[in-house]
Amino acid sequence: MSSDRLIYLPLGGAGEIGMNAYVYGYGPKGKERLILVDIGVTFADMETSPGVDLIFPDMSWLIANKDRLEAIFITHGHEDHIGAVGHFWDRLGVPVYARAFTANLARHKMRDQGQPDQEVVTVSAWPETTKAGPFTVGFLPISHSIPESGALVIDTPAGRIIHTGDFKLDETPIVGEAFDPALWAAVSKDGVKALVCDSTNVFSRAEGRSEATVGPEIEKLILAAPQMVAATTFASNVARVKTLAEAGERAGRSICLMGRAMRRMVEAALETGVLTSFPKVVSPEEARSIPRENLMLLVTGSQGERRAATAQLARGKHNGITLKDGDTFLFSSKTIPGNEKGVIRIVNQLSEIGVDVVDDSAGHYHVSGHANRPDLERMQDIVNPQMVIPMHGEHRHLREHAKLSESKGRASVVAVNGTMLELTGNAPKVTEFVETGRTYLDGSVKIGAMDGVVRDRIRMALNGHVIVNVILDEDDEPLGEAWVELMGLPEVGSSHAPLSDVLEEDLTQFLGRAGAKTLADDDKLEENLRRIARNSAKTEIGKKPEVSVIVSRLS
Amino acid sequence: MSSDRLIYLPLGGAGEIGMNAYVYGYGPKGKERLILVDIGVTFADMETSPGVDLIFPDMSWLIANKDRLEAIFITHGHEDHIGAVGHFWDRLGVPVYARAFTANLARHKMRDQGQPDQEVVTVSAWPETTKAGPFTVGFLPISHSIPESGALVIDTPAGRIIHTGDFKLDETPIVGEAFDPALWAAVSKDGVKALVCDSTNVFSRAEGRSEATVGPEIEKLILAAPQMVAATTFASNVARVKTLAEAGERAGRSICLMGRAMRRMVEAALETGVLTSFPKVVSPEEARSIPRENLMLLVTGSQGERRAATAQLARGKHNGITLKDGDTFLFSSKTIPGNEKGVIRIVNQLSEIGVDVVDDSAGHYHVSGHANRPDLERMQDIVNPQMVIPMHGEHRHLREHAKLSESKGRASVVAVNGTMLELTGNAPKVTEFVETGRTYLDGSVKIGAMDGVVRDRIRMALNGHVIVNVILDEDDEPLGEAWVELMGLPEVGSSHAPLSDVLEEDLTQFLGRAGAKTLADDDKLEENLRRIARNSAKTEIGKKPEVSVIVSRLS
Repeated sequence: MSSDRLIYLPLGGAGEIGMNAYVYGYGPKGKERLILVDIGVTFADMETSPGVDLIFPDMSWLIANKDRLEAIFITHGHEDHIGAVGHFWDRLGVPVYARAFTANLARHKMRDQGQPDQEVVTVSAWPETTKAGPFTVGFLPISHSIPESGALVIDTPAGRIIHTGDFKLDETPIVGEAFDPALWAAVSKDGVKALVCDSTNVFSRAEGRSEATVGPEIEKLILAAPQMVAATTFASNVARVKTLAEAGERAGRSICLMGRAMRRMVEAALETGVLTSFPKVVSPEEARSIPRENLMLLVTGSQGERRAATAQLARGKHNGITLKDGDTFLFSSKTIPGNEKGVIRIVNQLSEIGVDVVDDSAGHYHVSGHANRPDLERMQDIVNPQMVIPMHGEHRHLREHAKLSESKGRASVVAVNGTMLELTGNAPKVTEFVETGRTYLDGSVKIGAMDGVVRDRIRMALNGHVIVNVILDEDDEPLGEAWVELMGLPEVGSSHAPLSDVLEEDLTQFLGRAGAKTLADDDKLEENLRRIARNSAKTEIGKKPEVSVIVSRLS
Repeated sequence: MSSDRLIYLPLGGAGEIGMNAYVYGYGPKGKERLILVDIGVTFADMETSPGVDLIFPDMSWLIANKDRLEAIFITHGHEDHIGAVGHFWDRLGVPVYARAFTANLARHKMRDQGQPDQEVVTVSAWPETTKAGPFTVGFLPISHSIPESGALVIDTPAGRIIHTGDFKLDETPIVGEAFDPALWAAVSKDGVKALVCDSTNVFSRAEGRSEATVGPEIEKLILAAPQMVAATTFASNVARVKTLAEAGERAGRSICLMGRAMRRMVEAALETGVLTSFPKVVSPEEARSIPRENLMLLVTGSQGERRAATAQLARGKHNGITLKDGDTFLFSSKTIPGNEKGVIRIVNQLSEIGVDVVDDSAGHYHVSGHANRPDLERMQDIVNPQMVIPMHGEHRHLREHAKLSESKGRASVVAVNGTMLELTGNAPKVTEFVETGRTYLDGSVKIGAMDGVVRDRIRMALNGHVIVNVILDEDDEPLGEAWVELMGLPEVGSSHAPLSDVLEEDLTQFLGRAGAKTLADDDKLEENLRRIARNSAKTEIGKKPEVSVIVSRLS
């Protein structure tokens, strides 16, 4: 009995911002009963994962131990916390617990992937709790940039853990429960073993600002706008969407929601009672007959996504509506690192149309959803945990957060994905490393990030691709000349002859002088043809392409 | 005679930040004598130009009109102004004029590309001038983030133009000439027809800060650092490099320059007298035997470039020197949009080593090299030009700058690349559009951005590449089965059989049922095989790959 232990194992989200997945376990070593907190995705990019549709944490460890898994708890509905639920549920097969708004979104995600949506269980906020093996878990309301974010109060035989999820300390959040310091103090008063805590904004030294501060500024902006106003933000930021819509309404404008996610989120918020009211909206068809100065669009695509409504408006038209010279476009958002170029492209397209673009560079029209450094300190002061485990951050965030915690006299540790911690003692102890990584959704197939598929794509993108085709007869004699196909390569190089001609000549010459032993040996032949093609290309065009060799034998 | 006109034509740099190239012409329409101001590059990225080594403006128009070209003037030594000089000089064949430091760099660039470096002519600052056809051109000193930036005073029969180049209004620039408002007023007092002006920081509403403000902060930081200090900045920012080195020296540290560009720039600055002194530097070999707390590294790679010294140190080692727990790394720089992820990757690698990373997020350790909005206004007040032509900016910058100028009662216009303006009258007049674009240096070959080469690479990166190989005998009958090679695609799809087997079976089945007419027709056969491969893959893996078809006929 005394050999039971409490463990923490991040499979995603620790050492990166994205694809959150945290495992807790309690029991004898190697036989701990487990729960999973969050099951999110991260987004692909051209630089590291071209062609990939979504990125998941590698769930192999959990799948291998699924007989020990009791339940999945989802803190909130952001994609990096909920996005993988439909993609992995069939491999895990346990109930999914979430609050109403999050559960609404989770059920859609289950249905999208053909999974049984009744496996998603709606739970109420603290003091309601759910038993899951040795764990008792409650959702403690906390403010964030999406409704109904819940910190988890995880009671274990070894003590109470508070897993914050994503949070900020907002006492006037517009939508959803305000941060309630008295409630948090009450929950913490009998002692908290570990605070497992959001690290995103640990480098932001000012106190966080409330969602309530942006409304008045937005209203001033809309009132001053001479023509149509369009505004974008994350659709899941229902408070912001409401603020924008109400500001538009007060300025005498009809509100039109554009983009599927925008309509979906408002719908989910109304269905679940997170929103009790929302300004009347008009359809894009109705909007077309409303004078521009009386219209306000709320559109998806604040991160520059090419297929979202914002990008379409910037390129010309979306749902029959066009922007014009004199219109105003508001980015009520922050650009996530990596998305800068996409957002800037859109801003310039809007500029070409003559649209005045307003963003948050002056700090008026957006506030962060994460706790800044002073707020993290306040959280520690309220909860007064024995130890702090930084999560939801890149290495630099985790390290800074651990240093901050230690400076306040609390045990802490940097535990990146795959680091299993034992929390049973007075300080977190690294006990094991589990292999973790990324799984790519590529079309409809899941592939490992290290499988080489994406590496080959990147190589073709950087170097181009040459296909060498050689046919040998029954006596292993070349039948005709070598033939090459080029893809992604210049047609002509330094000799001013077509590159394919130059390569074919060099390859055919080689075939002419190659010995019978080489011609009979597929591996040797391929290796030689590849080398010649690469070197010949290097001389002609200054780079060595990827080469595929196809040897056909008529035997 | 009265039909002579003065024209301005940006071939690069207007509607983007990068690859600057501006043409001025004077004379009868279509026979204007020309000069080129700057001939820069821009950098490729994985998203739009994978595998490309450098990006140049499309110089076709100028090459077609090179008999009318008199000279090239280079305002300063940044790559986006000087980087293409060696790559295009042989197609243009006119003298290149620059001040000493810029000329030193330009000669290196000419030699690197096998061009005659004596074609680069060193000129002195204003009041010295150079005749070039109908133009008389002088280099008016202006402060920027590289030594000896020169605005050009371009006298024409139609009046005086001031082309600012890149600039800020710095009266204490540490290295090089201070901005001298009296000199600028004197040059402008008899009237300036057009101010062609840097637009980069038109959205920055605070006054620009002097280079002199960063030194004291940097010195404080270095004095407080317990172990080794490494700092990175653009190597060409010689003033910053000097400030960093002197701060290190005053803190009792030996200075070690790491990275070729860092050594090259200090060398060029000393050779040309831009620097008259620089702290004694030690070699990396010597540095290894110096106690860490007495050492300071100045390293290249502030933008996260994978092969630069900073990235190598973050990955482990450069020139035998390693960073350790407790060292300090300073980014005395701003991250250029698009480079965020690369820089963040390095910061996290440094964090893993235990290095404390300091950047400019608090605004202490870097100042911009470009004039902010109030400085642009001050420049207009001093020069009092008849018209303002915004350049060196994306569309949004040019538009805002034109609006600013018009609000001050000056004629202005947004003229992006390819827009030929006539400046002869009282206001700029759009007179013609010239086809412009980008030329890629790919390995050793120049290719047009629209040639399709890079498009094919991007497609292979997004979709993977299937090669279909079919052999037909003398009677156009398939010889054996179809054969496929896959590159950048998952091995197994929904049917759990190897993807190549599935494709080969579908293709072979098609060959079996194909009519003689189809089999005899290369185009028809290819089209069918491609369609089947794509559809078959779509069913198996949920995406349609790029397909190359090779049909070999034994005839």
